[in-house]
Amino acid sequence: WHARHRFPWKLLLQVFKIIVVTIQLWLFAAQRYLHVAYLWDTRVSFSHMFLLGWESTREVLAYPPSDGPLAVYTRQEFYDYIDFAVVAYTNLSDISIGSYEYHSANDTVMPSHFCCEHYTESFARHLTECIDIPWAAVRAAKVWSALDFFDSRNFTVAFDTLLNCQYFFKVKAVKLRSEPSSLAPDCYNLTTTLVFDNDDRDGQMLVGLNIEATVLSCHSDDDNHTPQPEATTINILTMIMCCLSLLMCCRSLYRAQLLRYSCVTFFHTYYRKTLSKWDELEFCNFWYVLICINDILIIIGTLLKLGLESRNHEGYMDTWNICSLFLGVGNLLVWFGCLRYLGFFQTYNVLILTLKKCLPNVLRYSICITMLFAGYCLCGWLILSPYHIKFRSLSTTMECLYSLINGDDMFATFSSTSAKDPVIWWFSRIYLYSFISLFVYVILSLFLAIIMDAYDTIKRYYAEGFPKSPLQK
Amino acid sequence: WHARHRFPWKLLLQVFKIIVVTIQLWLFAAQRYLHVAYLWDTRVSFSHMFLLGWESTREVLAYPPSDGPLAVYTRQEFYDYIDFAVVAYTNLSDISIGSYEYHSANDTVMPSHFCCEHYTESFARHLTECIDIPWAAVRAAKVWSALDFFDSRNFTVAFDTLLNCQYFFKVKAVKLRSEPSSLAPDCYNLTTTLVFDNDDRDGQMLVGLNIEATVLSCHSDDDNHTPQPEATTINILTMIMCCLSLLMCCRSLYRAQLLRYSCVTFFHTYYRKTLSKWDELEFCNFWYVLICINDILIIIGTLLKLGLESRNHEGYMDTWNICSLFLGVGNLLVWFGCLRYLGFFQTYNVLILTLKKCLPNVLRYSICITMLFAGYCLCGWLILSPYHIKFRSLSTTMECLYSLINGDDMFATFSSTSAKDPVIWWFSRIYLYSFISLFVYVILSLFLAIIMDAYDTIKRYYAEGFPKSPLQK
Amino acid sequence: WHARHRFPWKLLLQVFKIIVVTIQLWLFAAQRYLHVAYLWDTRVSFSHMFLLGWESTREVLAYPPSDGPLAVYTRQEFYDYIDFAVVAYTNLSDISIGSYEYHSANDTVMPSHFCCEHYTESFARHLTECIDIPWAAVRAAKVWSALDFFDSRNFTVAFDTLLNCQYFFKVKAVKLRSEPSSLAPDCYNLTTTLVFDNDDRDGQMLVGLNIEATVLSCHSDDDNHTPQPEATTINILTMIMCCLSLLMCCRSLYRAQLLRYSCVTFFHTYYRKTLSKWDELEFCNFWYVLICINDILIIIGTLLKLGLESRNHEGYMDTWNICSLFLGVGNLLVWFGCLRYLGFFQTYNVLILTLKKCLPNVLRYSICITMLFAGYCLCGWLILSPYHIKFRSLSTTMECLYSLINGDDMFATFSSTSAKDPVIWWFSRIYLYSFISLFVYVILSLFLAIIMDAYDTIKRYYAEGFPKSPLQK
Amino acid sequence: WHARHRFPWKLLLQVFKIIVVTIQLWLFAAQRYLHVAYLWDTRVSFSHMFLLGWESTREVLAYPPSDGPLAVYTRQEFYDYIDFAVVAYTNLSDISIGSYEYHSANDTVMPSHFCCEHYTESFARHLTECIDIPWAAVRAAKVWSALDFFDSRNFTVAFDTLLNCQYFFKVKAVKLRSEPSSLAPDCYNLTTTLVFDNDDRDGQMLVGLNIEATVLSCHSDDDNHTPQPEATTINILTMIMCCLSLLMCCRSLYRAQLLRYSCVTFFHTYYRKTLSKWDELEFCNFWYVLICINDILIIIGTLLKLGLESRNHEGYMDTWNICSLFLGVGNLLVWFGCLRYLGFFQTYNVLILTLKKCLPNVLRYSICITMLFAGYCLCGWLILSPYHIKFRSLSTTMECLYSLINGDDMFATFSSTSAKDPVIWWFSRIYLYSFISLFVYVILSLFLAIIMDAYDTIKRYYAEGFPKSPLQK
Repeated sequence: WHARHRFPWKLLLQVFKIIVVTIQLWLFAAQRYLHVAYLWDTRVSFSHMFLLGWESTREVLAYPPSDGPLAVYTRQEFYDYIDFAVVAYTNLSDISIGSYEYHSANDTVMPSHFCCEHYTESFARHLTECIDIPWAAVRAAKVWSALDFFDSRNFTVAFDTLLNCQYFFKVKAVKLRSEPSSLAPDCYNLTTTLVFDNDDRDGQMLVGLNIEATVLSCHSDDDNHTPQPEATTINILTMIMCCLSLLMCCRSLYRAQLLRYSCVTFFHTYYRKTLSKWDELEFCNFWYVLICINDILIIIGTLLKLGLESRNHEGYMDTWNICSLFLGVGNLLVWFGCLRYLGFFQTYNVLILTLKKCLPNVLRYSICITMLFAGYCLCGWLILSPYHIKFRSLSTTMECLYSLINGDDMFATFSSTSAKDPVIWWFSRIYLYSFISLFVYVILSLFLAIIMDAYDTIKRYYAEGFPKSPLQK
Repeated sequence: WHARHRFPWKLLLQVFKIIVVTIQLWLFAAQRYLHVAYLWDTRVSFSHMFLLGWESTREVLAYPPSDGPLAVYTRQEFYDYIDFAVVAYTNLSDISIGSYEYHSANDTVMPSHFCCEHYTESFARHLTECIDIPWAAVRAAKVWSALDFFDSRNFTVAFDTLLNCQYFFKVKAVKLRSEPSSLAPDCYNLTTTLVFDNDDRDGQMLVGLNIEATVLSCHSDDDNHTPQPEATTINILTMIMCCLSLLMCCRSLYRAQLLRYSCVTFFHTYYRKTLSKWDELEFCNFWYVLICINDILIIIGTLLKLGLESRNHEGYMDTWNICSLFLGVGNLLVWFGCLRYLGFFQTYNVLILTLKKCLPNVLRYSICITMLFAGYCLCGWLILSPYHIKFRSLSTTMECLYSLINGDDMFATFSSTSAKDPVIWWFSRIYLYSFISLFVYVILSLFLAIIMDAYDTIKRYYAEGFPKSPLQK
Repeated sequence: WHARHRFPWKLLLQVFKIIVVTIQLWLFAAQRYLHVAYLWDTRVSFSHMFLLGWESTREVLAYPPSDGPLAVYTRQEFYDYIDFAVVAYTNLSDISIGSYEYHSANDTVMPSHFCCEHYTESFARHLTECIDIPWAAVRAAKVWSALDFFDSRNFTVAFDTLLNCQYFFKVKAVKLRSEPSSLAPDCYNLTTTLVFDNDDRDGQMLVGLNIEATVLSCHSDDDNHTPQPEATTINILTMIMCCLSLLMCCRSLYRAQLLRYSCVTFFHTYYRKTLSKWDELEFCNFWYVLICINDILIIIGTLLKLGLESRNHEGYMDTWNICSLFLGVGNLLVWFGCLRYLGFFQTYNVLILTLKKCLPNVLRYSICITMLFAGYCLCGWLILSPYHIKFRSLSTTMECLYSLINGDDMFATFSSTSAKDPVIWWFSRIYLYSFISLFVYVILSLFLAIIMDAYDTIKRYYAEGFPKSPLQK
Repeated sequence: WHARHRFPWKLLLQVFKIIVVTIQLWLFAAQRYLHVAYLWDTRVSFSHMFLLGWESTREVLAYPPSDGPLAVYTRQEFYDYIDFAVVAYTNLSDISIGSYEYHSANDTVMPSHFCCEHYTESFARHLTECIDIPWAAVRAAKVWSALDFFDSRNFTVAFDTLLNCQYFFKVKAVKLRSEPSSLAPDCYNLTTTLVFDNDDRDGQMLVGLNIEATVLSCHSDDDNHTPQPEATTINILTMIMCCLSLLMCCRSLYRAQLLRYSCVTFFHTYYRKTLSKWDELEFCNFWYVLICINDILIIIGTLLKLGLESRNHEGYMDTWNICSLFLGVGNLLVWFGCLRYLGFFQTYNVLILTLKKCLPNVLRYSICITMLFAGYCLCGWLILSPYHIKFRSLSTTMECLYSLINGDDMFATFSSTSAKDPVIWWFSRIYLYSFISLFVYVILSLFLAIIMDAYDTIKRYYAEGFPKSPLQK
């Protein structure tokens, strides 16, 4: 029943596949990281240049954030921010360290735009008004004031009914590569938007900066882009490997189906027994299905990657994430697949058999726990959401509680919930103490009990022999 | 004995109830979050506008705080803070981004108030003196100085005997809704108080800003407030569901009592045995009691919610927390109740039976641990409270120690206790090492042992049959 | 053998004692916290007033610190700091919010002092030079400059051989109590020292501010200090309780010794057997010894507390810590003693018996682990100390490793060790991975195994009867 | 078979060795810490003096960093940084608190240098241009401007093709020792480099300061350096101890080999059996090998240490790390070796035997887990690297996941991955939940099961006797 005579061929293929696929992932990860880091750093540079109150502490993505949100609170500040951004845009190519160029039409630089969204008088609809800010006028002015400019154009920012304002402009960025192998620079069209968000209408106007980057063909007409030879080699190798592996697994699955049919017929004819669904499922080798899935994922991912590397079409940005998702999950499953070959050695088989054995119990048990967990989540979310950042949304509540079970920073959670209202204070204490005690001491211990039970069972099987399924009998 | 023929009806009701109740909670949580977030953001805006030394790092509720308390340390700073706040109040409607209006009487804007509490000369009593700061005078002045103003009115701030000072004023806030479905704006009366707290008399005068919000009827007389139809539907559905479920559970409980009486009589008549208290308690189905409780909680919560949504009375703010508490806990128990229906499937029953089995032992054991824990808490609180922020009060000491057992950030606790006094240093080390070693390695392991023991017992019962209670015999 | 007929009397006494002692601790903790918090806040106030570069972020004791040490790096900064402090001292009573008075002799305010410690030319000895800074001169000057003043007095700060400088002065502080029950204000003599520490001679001169507080008798000659009646009551009650309890325990211990003698004689006479040391130790009831110890601790602590509350002698500050240590540890042991009375109920006895049973094994095992732990500590300390703040000293290394076993923030430890030297990088990775894997997965699991083994043994004893000691036979 | 009659001699030697070696480590660690701390503090001082935007928050090595990287974003800032550094260098000996001297030739101070690396026009090569900044000219100028200076020398910084700039200079530092025992000051040659790094060409120019220190012979010609006597004594003692111990262990190993040969011959002659490789390996005592290794490590480390203490050659800096590595790992193994002597007591032997017993299973099992872990690592690295600082490189991904298993701050990991792209958001949630659940609940529990199984086996062996190896039979 153990199909060990087919072993050496496929194993070799799989070992080779795992190496090739991992190398491919490695190269791709480096490439992708460079790309995303460039965009991230550009956003940081622009924040420094266009946002008046930007500080480098805001560049760190920490939890909890070290700072409140960037916002303006007075009308004067609002105009100062606009003045700063407009002047920075006007002098961008002179003051910036990076290489940015203006878009221009008819030898005049394109103006930047400023738009505001208001309520109408009757509150029935939203109304968006826009104004162009000409480049040359700002450049010529010694001190440029947005307020004066708006007045001269009869453009008013009515703060009482204001919903949000946006200032946006486009520039071209040229990125020289530092490694000499591929000298052709990359060019991007950066659409930058400063957003002043007053939707909440609570006196706090949030300020943010967004950059959208799309690919541009550079001025240099010699598009001598040659893809790196090693990348191409790896791509082709991966495709071949995966297709081969896919074919062989499909063949095996197909043969297993044939065997199942003949077996069903055999049982039917000789024993007058029909096989149960679970018995029939045993013919469908879970491992082959796994390998098929990862082959398909990697093939799709590689195709997407080829598309990315050809770089012919604009706006290709969006597929980086999808592509890495396919390659990453494919790779994950390839490594999982290795367990199968380790399972051939009897001593290594324990993990897999124990997992298989305890899986149904663990799942059943998980369903019970999920009920309790869902109750705690919803209750905590409703009551604590305004008083604690970790309970802000349902998903963060889930993450917070899940983390608490696993020993996350509990005291910080306790201490931050110390609202002034004693009702909330007492509730949060009872809630957290009961949740942690119940889950950590009682429920996780039961998990342990279930798994150790399964391990003992498997060990007894090894000593006394496995129970036979009806097929084997 | 298993009452399974009544099953489909009630289960359906409960499943439906759980869905309705969860949707209700979902809608209410969003509504409440918006409300509390508005107040919170308003507090932030006002802090920026009225507090001289406010910085956005103070908006983050982190542990440990990133900053010391906001305080003034010299008399000059104190007057600067007052000047800043008074001027900001005077120009509020001009400079602020949000929509705030002054309260006014006889066409003059209401003055703001400044009060100070002193000791009297004989230290026998506290004395509070107040002064009004007229709006128009400040507005007219080019540079307004609190010190000069106080001098001109013969109002002195005697720092030597000063306990605290307060500056307060009232403004009206209008909140336009961003979603178009309910256009009627909300209006609030914001009573803002700047508190200068010198109670400790240690040269540090803490500064804080409090806002109390009460509902106002807006100027717009067309109070075309129509509650959202979906909210109303859900409210009504919830009420019906819960009442039905409550009725059915009460009926079941009542029937169980009847059964109990007849059973007691039966035993008394035929076996000359009286049933023990515990045997009689078995008639009272714990699950039905649970369902009754959650029904009652949700009904009360829904009634409160209806009150909140009608928005007719001022000062309704306070019931948001109570209402969410009732709905939240009710929902928690509803989800717990699901376990009962899962318990009908034998394989799922393990969790519940194991919990039931190990509960008495766990509780007894917990009492023992509580003694040790209380000793450590009191001792740590007394000795370490001035040297470590986590031991400041008894409740934080409890939270800190409880968190340490569960693997909280231990090193930070160690490192922050490094007082200069070597006695304290050595004590804190011995205290923490002994506490953690004892609780994590010894006591939690025993917990595990108790629960695994209960699990084994239950498993043996499944294999060998459950022991029978005297009733079943 | 179980001495249960003496039970009710002593239990009552102990229950009463625990209540009284806990109340005493509660009152004392509040009292002590107020006292230490006053000193701490005064230090914060003085830091704000006398240290030029002080910021409120430095008031938070966090790990890791949010800021580098407060230091001066140029000569100009050094003089600026001195100027700032001298001017602040000169105007202290005018600018400060708290109530501070100068010490004065002959109607002139005492001068402040400035001292510097140098190397001599030959490097053989240290030399300290001092200069007085007269109060009136600084007060009279419009802009006072330390550099000019030093020049005029021929006092030079030779930076090349400078070791450290100190600026110090004394002020009187008056603290009014906010609660009206005890109106007599407390007076302190605050000796404040600004330390400029250049011992490391690496271009960084650390700046610090120390305050030493001693008690002064206030001006007010009516020393109508009456100790609070409730505190006195509790003190007396505690003393009576503890003395009674001590007496009774001593009596019991004495009787047990008598019993031992007669028993030894009995065995010697009738069985010709001598009892082993361990058998004899069984006569000495561990619980009585525990109670005696905690009684003695609490009696000493209460005596110290009485001394503190009388407040007659100056310089009593130092006994606060000692006193709280005695009371705290005494209280801890009182609570531990409760376990004895719980142990009378058989079902509660499991914890205590299991602890007793597994203690020898746990200790033996701990010794083995200590070897491994010591090796890791010393090795990690030596190699990583300059590259990671957690490995700076041997004690922090121990705390860090101990915390890591218990699930402390591991990633932060990993990430901060990323030195530039690849040797250190690889070593730190191998070191941490091996340490955590070994201790968390292998050694802690063995702990669990030992304790569960002891629990099983005790459970078997309960089922099958305890093994008898030779005495019982 | 137990070689206990040789015991007292060697044990004594080992106990003595452990003491000596630990003392040596202690002394060396203190020495090394002082040295590295001096360099670190010098770097901090220079950062304050030469970097315009340096703040003391940057001195703390925290995770996550409290601040974004130090960088310049506009051309003006870039020149400001250079001006600041050049002026600071020119006035260094006047303004600094530490003792620094210029290098000078022909009585003129050595100039500092400024270099920039550009792309050439054709992008084919990199080009480095340098310019000297004369000391005297800057000193003479009232306000010195780098831009004007560069213009006057026809040196242009072409930002469009700029790769990086460097400003460097050399100074001599004299370090007086604070302890009087060794008065000879240490002298260092500090080569300081300010790096402006624009390799990424994304508008952000990172600024950094590096110091390289090499040893100089001081001016003082009396090189009366006498090594501390206690250090010398310890060094010599260590050498003797380790050599002795090494000799004895080698002898024992040699004898064991002799025994093996005779044993093999014996079996071969009398039983006609050849011994298996594993049986033969039993003759090679693992403990002796361990002791040999640690002796060799410590001897090498001590030799390196002697070299460091003689301080004759320049550039000796690099061996500090290597030396501490040898001594540290040697010490770690010495402590491990203690377990052997504890193993002679039968009750202490459990740990060692259990470890021995479960080792093969744990290793085999670890290999299985490694497959799963590798899959998760690669997948997480690829997909999340641009969105989360913890997944930036493969090694940090490994550390992050490994820490998560051990209960690291999970919520922070969750919360920081909240990218805007919903694909990434959902992936990161599924990824983290599945990883943690699988590893914490299932895989770690199996670890526990394996180890408790081994412990039970060993306990049974103790009760029933150990199974005999063929040799023992």
